Amino acid sequence: MSDTSIQNELIVQSTALLSAVRQKKPRIHCITNAAAQVFTANLLLAAGAIPSLTIAAEEVPHFTRRASALLINLGTLDAERRVAIPAALATVRETGQPWVLDPVFVDASPPRFELARTLIGRKPDIIRCNEAEFEILSSRSASPDTLALLSRHHGCVVAMTGPIDRVADYERTIAIANGHPLMSQTTAMGCAGTALIAAFAALTDDRFIATAAALLVLGVTGELAAQDARGPGSFVAAFLDRLAALDARELSTHARIST
Amino acid sequence: MSDTSIQNELIVQSTALLSAVRQKKPRIHCITNAAAQVFTANLLLAAGAIPSLTIAAEEVPHFTRRASALLINLGTLDAERRVAIPAALATVRETGQPWVLDPVFVDASPPRFELARTLIGRKPDIIRCNEAEFEILSSRSASPDTLALLSRHHGCVVAMTGPIDRVADYERTIAIANGHPLMSQTTAMGCAGTALIAAFAALTDDRFIATAAALLVLGVTGELAAQDARGPGSFVAAFLDRLAALDARELSTHARIST
Amino acid sequence: MSDTSIQNELIVQSTALLSAVRQKKPRIHCITNAAAQVFTANLLLAAGAIPSLTIAAEEVPHFTRRASALLINLGTLDAERRVAIPAALATVRETGQPWVLDPVFVDASPPRFELARTLIGRKPDIIRCNEAEFEILSSRSASPDTLALLSRHHGCVVAMTGPIDRVADYERTIAIANGHPLMSQTTAMGCAGTALIAAFAALTDDRFIATAAALLVLGVTGELAAQDARGPGSFVAAFLDRLAALDARELSTHARIST
Repeated sequence: MSDTSIQNELIVQSTALLSAVRQKKPRIHCITNAAAQVFTANLLLAAGAIPSLTIAAEEVPHFTRRASALLINLGTLDAERRVAIPAALATVRETGQPWVLDPVFVDASPPRFELARTLIGRKPDIIRCNEAEFEILSSRSASPDTLALLSRHHGCVVAMTGPIDRVADYERTIAIANGHPLMSQTTAMGCAGTALIAAFAALTDDRFIATAAALLVLGVTGELAAQDARGPGSFVAAFLDRLAALDARELSTHARIST
Repeated sequence: MSDTSIQNELIVQSTALLSAVRQKKPRIHCITNAAAQVFTANLLLAAGAIPSLTIAAEEVPHFTRRASALLINLGTLDAERRVAIPAALATVRETGQPWVLDPVFVDASPPRFELARTLIGRKPDIIRCNEAEFEILSSRSASPDTLALLSRHHGCVVAMTGPIDRVADYERTIAIANGHPLMSQTTAMGCAGTALIAAFAALTDDRFIATAAALLVLGVTGELAAQDARGPGSFVAAFLDRLAALDARELSTHARIST
Repeated sequence: MSDTSIQNELIVQSTALLSAVRQKKPRIHCITNAAAQVFTANLLLAAGAIPSLTIAAEEVPHFTRRASALLINLGTLDAERRVAIPAALATVRETGQPWVLDPVFVDASPPRFELARTLIGRKPDIIRCNEAEFEILSSRSASPDTLALLSRHHGCVVAMTGPIDRVADYERTIAIANGHPLMSQTTAMGCAGTALIAAFAALTDDRFIATAAALLVLGVTGELAAQDARGPGSFVAAFLDRLAALDARELSTHARIST
């Protein structure tokens, strides 16, 4: 496909997934870090999904079972979260929902790195990381080729976010150049964004499209929110307002997609 | 009493309780879920109360003792919270402050349901729940009659919130039709609202009035905040701004109360 | 020095430290309470620093090691935090970064008071407290003299914040009369402010100047934010927006400094 047809295809799919979340209101269970819980919940609610956040091991199977997708984020990885994660994964192994791994700060902490490797061995549907996290996980410099390699090696979609977001699966790669610097001046923006990937993955079997569509939605929302914001404080509210109101025209006007 | 006189009576009482919180600044200890802690604290501060939030078992008795009311919310029910709750209840049994139970998501998790039943047996002054939580707790379909039945059975005030909030005690029922859909697009709005019930209960022995007044204040605040908000993000800040500034005229202009 | 020259000196140093944080982006590891984590992270990001927040004992040494300063806040002092604190302190003892203690609510809880005393014995570079916390820690009424006494006794900078912020070390005292009442109507404003002290302490060996400069920046930011805010809700976003944009002219126009 040409870049133009890929761009058009992704815009169409993103619009469809955004509508589907608003209509079907999928439940997403999020085992995520203490700094990300509130914004993740609010981002999912603004998108139309229904979050749950418990990390209590005895409750996680019940919440995971009624969810349509699972997010595992490795931030603030305390004892409770270490027990919650395998409990949630045991449930999705039975019930088959997609799960998304966000190995946040895996470059900063060897125990977290070890856990991330173990979890990747348990076959997440999607991994989202930044460049530093990608490089330590893959032992390679970041590039579209090494991204595709990691994807093929682990049999999952891999997204690496940054000024340009890149997504790869076994046979496709895509680059999305949307977003705004204020997004990295707000804690948990990336973490919460991964929850939107999970919400989209709940509604399509094409994990590659789910991932790229969520990143496109997040990037365009960030650009629109930056127009409304006076700084990183007001940006947070503007981001949620813009996400709740995002429409097909805005997506197609702002999308910057290439292969 | 006619509906009009009940409406007027509740407006008067709500105005008085709002003033009392602003003047007396009661301390409210909140054992609440990880997604609700910040917004609960900010809502109490905006109302004029002083929140504390620790869930550490050895500290909970000290914070509970100096508080004027206690909130127990069952969200993100981890091991620490499971120990904190009985420690706090042992303190209020000695010291006699009112306590309010918010059995959030009790319909989603059997271990949480079991704990909620045990806690209801320990006689909360007030229970606030939504329809799904009410139905699993009472094993009945939600209606004004079954609400009154649950209230009489457990000897406490029961509030069921939703598009219409209903409150019952042994002999009274009331319905409040205020609020705005954005309130359910913001995480922890209900949880934080229950903390306002606790703050009002700290300042009057009439738990029924405390509960209805808090729900009226929350509903009217939500309507006013929606006028200022561009979406669910800006709604959060607008809600706190409007709560801090709420006055008698706004309450009486907007109140929609019936029996 | 005259008050004018001290005022000018602190404005110059504050401007320089603000620029240094924006350029050098120091990492600050924060062991802080559950209600403060998000706002602390967002305040550090708005100032230009990079926060990390994990409290997991096995991860804390790794995050502390790569940080340029450490914040220890005693709020929501649960079992995990009790283990995390000595793990972090053992690391800074080896690696030598400054650490700042915020003994929040130490007046409310005897177990917390005991821990605070132990920690003060481990020689924090800076302690920040409010008047009630100061009085229980020092067993004296708050005054510039008793502040200086506590500073000399423990060999650290002591800051006591309130309508007037006071800072003392072995030979200097300063008073900063900036700030706005809305700052105390927002949860975690003081806690997050202590993180800015840590960020400034990461970039100068003069802990007294670091502390006073951070309090000046916070106070002026609060005044500017209050101009933009409609209440305590919008104040939070306005505070972060104003902090990210704060410049030398605003500092010098608004500063109210005396000895």
